[in-house]
Amino acid sequence: MKINMNKEELRKFLLHAPQGSIHKYMENIHPVDILDILRENPEDSFDILNRLPEKTIATIIDEAEDKEKYEILIKFEDNKQKNIVEEMSSDELADLLGILDEEESNKLLSKMTARDARNVRQLLSYAPDTAAGIMASEFISVRENMTIKETLKYLQQNKDDSENIYDLYVIDTFDRLKGSISLKDIVVNDFDTKISSIINTEVSTIPFDMDQEQVGNKFVKYGFLSMPVVDNSNRLLGIITVDDAMQIIRDEGTEDINRLGGVAAEEKINGTLRDSVKYRLPWLLINLLTAIFASAIVGMFEVTIEKVVSLATFMSIVSGMGGNAGTQTLTIIVRGLALGEISYKNIKRVLVKEFCIGIITGTVIGTVIAILGFIWERNIAFGIIIGVAMILNMIVATVTGFVVPIVLKRLKIDPALASSIFVTTFTDVLGFFFFLGLATIFIQYLV
Amino acid sequence: MKINMNKEELRKFLLHAPQGSIHKYMENIHPVDILDILRENPEDSFDILNRLPEKTIATIIDEAEDKEKYEILIKFEDNKQKNIVEEMSSDELADLLGILDEEESNKLLSKMTARDARNVRQLLSYAPDTAAGIMASEFISVRENMTIKETLKYLQQNKDDSENIYDLYVIDTFDRLKGSISLKDIVVNDFDTKISSIINTEVSTIPFDMDQEQVGNKFVKYGFLSMPVVDNSNRLLGIITVDDAMQIIRDEGTEDINRLGGVAAEEKINGTLRDSVKYRLPWLLINLLTAIFASAIVGMFEVTIEKVVSLATFMSIVSGMGGNAGTQTLTIIVRGLALGEISYKNIKRVLVKEFCIGIITGTVIGTVIAILGFIWERNIAFGIIIGVAMILNMIVATVTGFVVPIVLKRLKIDPALASSIFVTTFTDVLGFFFFLGLATIFIQYLV
Repeated sequence: MKINMNKEELRKFLLHAPQGSIHKYMENIHPVDILDILRENPEDSFDILNRLPEKTIATIIDEAEDKEKYEILIKFEDNKQKNIVEEMSSDELADLLGILDEEESNKLLSKMTARDARNVRQLLSYAPDTAAGIMASEFISVRENMTIKETLKYLQQNKDDSENIYDLYVIDTFDRLKGSISLKDIVVNDFDTKISSIINTEVSTIPFDMDQEQVGNKFVKYGFLSMPVVDNSNRLLGIITVDDAMQIIRDEGTEDINRLGGVAAEEKINGTLRDSVKYRLPWLLINLLTAIFASAIVGMFEVTIEKVVSLATFMSIVSGMGGNAGTQTLTIIVRGLALGEISYKNIKRVLVKEFCIGIITGTVIGTVIAILGFIWERNIAFGIIIGVAMILNMIVATVTGFVVPIVLKRLKIDPALASSIFVTTFTDVLGFFFFLGLATIFIQYLV
Repeated sequence: MKINMNKEELRKFLLHAPQGSIHKYMENIHPVDILDILRENPEDSFDILNRLPEKTIATIIDEAEDKEKYEILIKFEDNKQKNIVEEMSSDELADLLGILDEEESNKLLSKMTARDARNVRQLLSYAPDTAAGIMASEFISVRENMTIKETLKYLQQNKDDSENIYDLYVIDTFDRLKGSISLKDIVVNDFDTKISSIINTEVSTIPFDMDQEQVGNKFVKYGFLSMPVVDNSNRLLGIITVDDAMQIIRDEGTEDINRLGGVAAEEKINGTLRDSVKYRLPWLLINLLTAIFASAIVGMFEVTIEKVVSLATFMSIVSGMGGNAGTQTLTIIVRGLALGEISYKNIKRVLVKEFCIGIITGTVIGTVIAILGFIWERNIAFGIIIGVAMILNMIVATVTGFVVPIVLKRLKIDPALASSIFVTTFTDVLGFFFFLGLATIFIQYLV
């Protein structure tokens, strides 16, 4: 077979090659590449799937999105479904069951072995965004008194159970974690080395209820290939592997970006128009409310604006610049919170820094706009008023840009979700209020 | 030794335990944890480092930020530096050299073995954000005709060179990549299995000049532990490992979040005030320019506002809502571009969708504000004018939110960096223009 077939070649190969050679070469083809072909050629989908070994179908389903998993699985008759399900990993089965209704779910559970069903039911009992909600219950455990050679023999004999091995674990008779050994340690140490002499007892464990965002941060920090998930008594419940961790790191990034931009975490580029409107409209309506609120502030000062209509021209600059400065601060704070970079140790320092940034950038921007305002209106008071309003609003901006996400986090609300609406409301309302308020007080110097 | 020492216990252990037990337990302690202690206790830093084996110091430097690497390294006298450098990996050495001036850089190169120096010079010749710029040149290659047992013996004998093994590679006499074998395949197959029978010839390779963002996407898609970087003749230049990939995925997320929020990609939560001001002020000044530009539009209509001062109250709602809708669209598009989810295949569909979202959400928001405007002003024309202006501006918002990032990407400018400034300028300027322009045309119905 040609090395690195392109998609069209792979599609034809899967459709027309003799089944023997398909089975033979399956190990060389990544299930994601087959999944791409199924997605792009739905008309060939069933024909292709039907020619694949059940094990491959299981790995393809493992890689698919939750909804797709079910669509692929129900194409087959009951007995084949049973075989496929047996090859699937527990975490993917749990994800799949998570989106099914009770009837479908029970039907599927009945197709699993008793052990799988028990595992999957257990996994479903954990919150989906926690460590236990994303872990797989399959892992390989070995005994301390085994040698490398015995361990290798053991792995060779249990080849079929070892789909996802990255590290091996040593547990005691109460399932409590005693240590881990990486595959690297297995392959570089002599055959008669005892596991006990290479075991790593200082294993970083993940509490079962840790938020998946923190799990992702741990993987980035340590660069592990897998990490053990334990309960409160240090019993090994399952493992999280680096491929899942990468997915989490990316998805958490997307979630924060989307939420900061006022879009639902779930919105996808290839989603439907209906979904996009459903996700975006509520956010726009909330924004409309706050915009009306800010306008009401302007409305309070209509008498002043009637006297000096240039105030209307300049007022958006003050509110808008506050919004920009506030967004800068909240962006840094929200990401810092997500990456676990903000702690009791540096929180005060960061607040002081943001306050100073507000003063410094506010003074620079305030001075520039004061000079421009003076030139435009040929009125010193106008320049001073807009300059002072700008400085005040920029300080409000950086301070609320700091405080709002911290408070939301404390209230267990995702700071990425709601920070910007609060911060820009503050900067809009106060921007208008400072500028038009000062103008009202000092109106005799303006007309 | 106690399992899972806390930081304070680890600090004391490193400072006071007999050197023998430190050396013995080093394998169990992750270098990142020692690095944390060095960072938090700079006064103990040299004492701790001095008691560590050179190999451990090298792994700590590998994990450190580029600037820290040098600060740690130069604490030691020349000979020890030499030994540490020898233990470091080529990609980390290249990163370190990348931030040094020529004199420092030459000094450091002189401390490397000829082979290391050549490797590192080669790595430095690649662009830092490409695959070749982040790869390590160390990898383990084996021959096809070896058996598993021979391979294991070979790995055992070359234990010291195998710091970072995730996969093994088979190359021909011209260094061209023939295939790869995972460690998993090594440990689960029988001792007399030939490498040739388990080799994966359909290896996904990374072209040396691929952008690191795309490299990250490949790792997420396939879940690989390492990927080979090849030149145009398929010669194996080096490998990228999953720990580096995780870092990239996270950093690219942070970069996009920062840039979308108007903050430099480099700004860090623990950075200096000076740096923050330096990074943020230029962005604020650019925003000030566009805000002044938008205000100038309002200035053109001062005569109209003088006649109907409520226009000043309502105008920010039209521009602001356009900004919100535009930000939603550009957020989805910028992230879609970063994740490689936008292609020729779906680009038209996405544009049509965004256009429809503009019409639908514009109509809803426009209707609401039209009714409110009518109630507030008790004037039907006022309601119709603000409603129509809103619909027009929301359509402009979603279309420019789509077009701007796509065009910037085509011009090889990071869409995350500049999209929002263009989009909000459009929505501000056109928001004011539509609303005040319509009001000017139909002024006789308003007064």
